Amino acid sequence: MTRRRCRQIMVGAVPVGGDAPVPVQSMLNVPTRDLAAAAAQLESLRRAGAGIVRLAVDGEADVAALRELVKQTPLPLVADIQFDRASALGAIRAGAAAVRVNPGLFPAEGAEFSALAATLIEHGTAIRVGANSGSIGEAAVREACRRGLDRDAALAQVLAEKTLRQCEALEKCGVYHVKAALKASSVGVTVAANRFFAARSELPLHIGVTEAGTNYRGTIKSACGIGALLLEGIGDTIRVSLTGAPEQEVRAGIAILEACGRRDAASEIVSCPTCGRTAVDLEALAGRVEALIARLRSAGTVLPYRKIAVMGCPVNGPGEARDADFGIAGTRTGELLLFRRGEVLGVFSADEAMEQLEKLLAPPPSGE
Amino acid sequence: MTRRRCRQIMVGAVPVGGDAPVPVQSMLNVPTRDLAAAAAQLESLRRAGAGIVRLAVDGEADVAALRELVKQTPLPLVADIQFDRASALGAIRAGAAAVRVNPGLFPAEGAEFSALAATLIEHGTAIRVGANSGSIGEAAVREACRRGLDRDAALAQVLAEKTLRQCEALEKCGVYHVKAALKASSVGVTVAANRFFAARSELPLHIGVTEAGTNYRGTIKSACGIGALLLEGIGDTIRVSLTGAPEQEVRAGIAILEACGRRDAASEIVSCPTCGRTAVDLEALAGRVEALIARLRSAGTVLPYRKIAVMGCPVNGPGEARDADFGIAGTRTGELLLFRRGEVLGVFSADEAMEQLEKLLAPPPSGE
Repeated sequence: MTRRRCRQIMVGAVPVGGDAPVPVQSMLNVPTRDLAAAAAQLESLRRAGAGIVRLAVDGEADVAALRELVKQTPLPLVADIQFDRASALGAIRAGAAAVRVNPGLFPAEGAEFSALAATLIEHGTAIRVGANSGSIGEAAVREACRRGLDRDAALAQVLAEKTLRQCEALEKCGVYHVKAALKASSVGVTVAANRFFAARSELPLHIGVTEAGTNYRGTIKSACGIGALLLEGIGDTIRVSLTGAPEQEVRAGIAILEACGRRDAASEIVSCPTCGRTAVDLEALAGRVEALIARLRSAGTVLPYRKIAVMGCPVNGPGEARDADFGIAGTRTGELLLFRRGEVLGVFSADEAMEQLEKLLAPPPSGE
Repeated sequence: MTRRRCRQIMVGAVPVGGDAPVPVQSMLNVPTRDLAAAAAQLESLRRAGAGIVRLAVDGEADVAALRELVKQTPLPLVADIQFDRASALGAIRAGAAAVRVNPGLFPAEGAEFSALAATLIEHGTAIRVGANSGSIGEAAVREACRRGLDRDAALAQVLAEKTLRQCEALEKCGVYHVKAALKASSVGVTVAANRFFAARSELPLHIGVTEAGTNYRGTIKSACGIGALLLEGIGDTIRVSLTGAPEQEVRAGIAILEACGRRDAASEIVSCPTCGRTAVDLEALAGRVEALIARLRSAGTVLPYRKIAVMGCPVNGPGEARDADFGIAGTRTGELLLFRRGEVLGVFSADEAMEQLEKLLAPPPSGE
């Protein structure tokens, strides 16, 4: 899996694109002007692993709050501008790492567009050109359909072309730190639009599926769309959109990056689906391993990457767990075999196996 | 998104491949020989929406139970054979819709392979050639690396070539109803192996990521891998492997198919991630809409496909919800606008909006 070559831009101190790690984004769902609530949620998102956070900026009160928040958090803040052009300029001057604007708000011909570009350059601020399928006019889609595209392909192409034009206009004005986002509530349209854009631009891409839905379905929809793009090397920063707590968006985003090999998991647990041959409670066991790792990490133990296999099948388990750093495999009699890279360390009860595994993951200092 | 052209085979009464719908599979995690438990789980999986179910068959007691189960359930049953070649023949004679064998268990040159092929043909039974990355020898992978492939690509290619050879051997013997499954615990390897196979064979593919892990991470890993393949038209039946209740596997599988446009959702709810502009409790509202649909369906109401948008943003919401059949958008004052295909039906409280929506989704018979 080769990553698409693209420009590396800076969003505050965080590089996006090129060979930089892929930061996970989320967005505050409390009003920006509610300074205490916004600061608390920012800190909560930072702890959850967010790399960049967006917040709504509509008017002077939000701009003033943004100016304070910038001082309080190490996270780059992206000002989301929907209606108020003056807020875009205000947010840049207040220290936003980036502004996110819809192409429709700043038509490329206007004087306001030139003012935006000049202010971005003056402050070294990044811009995300963010277009949503919901804002694409019906006439443009019908026109693309007449060129022989089906409706989804037409929508994807119009979305990408609109975004490309806005990005090109910014570049012509000398704005360097530009990234693009093309979102649709349809996974297929999202993937097609990003592919189309990626083949025609060297700018980094923020990817996500918009209005993805409730937690469960939204996570699955985002994993399908973001995962498909990441697996073909497209995507430089991601956001999972969920109707719910933004911390859940960060958790899902990190899991998607890990699943697609775009982020080193602190540790990876692979476990087999149980079948009629399983004589141990594998779900409980996998949960205990997951909890052990979480406990060690939250206690500050630095854990190198480890692949840990939890296998129920007494015959295939040990064989399939061979390439894991550590493996646990159930026996027909309900006990557990513990492995280290294929080498059997012994037969244990579940409690004993967890104790042994903890020693293997976080060896006590020598001398103890 | 064009679906890959491939052969349509029959797994019992269920077509797999060609232009058939993509059935979601799962596997019993109770012993097949425990007839009562197996029958109960089969029924539970049928209700959850499983289209095909696999069960472990190791020895005479399992074969005898399979013979009974086949009479009790309308679901096609796939006998999973791991160690015991005689069980494969026994399962076919007992009425299994398909057997799943690892290429290693029946080397293509042996007499037992010929007997297997002849028995499959005699009973019109399908076979799934199922290979896992865990059973690939290290020597073959190293050899492929020497051909210039990186380790993941090498593993994917060796896995696909091994599966292709076994499929070709079966076809030479005249077995028609053949499908293949190539699984790895790495999403990237799974996707690459299936692409390699799909480009070289006209057989249908069963896709899934093996040992995907615990419920949350396993669902995300499977959505990334299965989703990426489905979105490029590859995949004729799917299984999400989770360490947990098989009903969860079916739920996740259905959600993945819906997300990728491979299955019509009974109804689709799109909802925006909330942001600082949202003045209504959108998560609760989306949950209420989801619960309403579930309640109507479980009461036997036939619901045609409807796209329902639940939007928090008072300005973009109605516009973005325009292409939905029905839409709810929060106002700045915390009330809800109800829409039907762009037409505003009125401003309501949450309770009133739910009541109106129920009438729109399931209109009372005229005259009432």
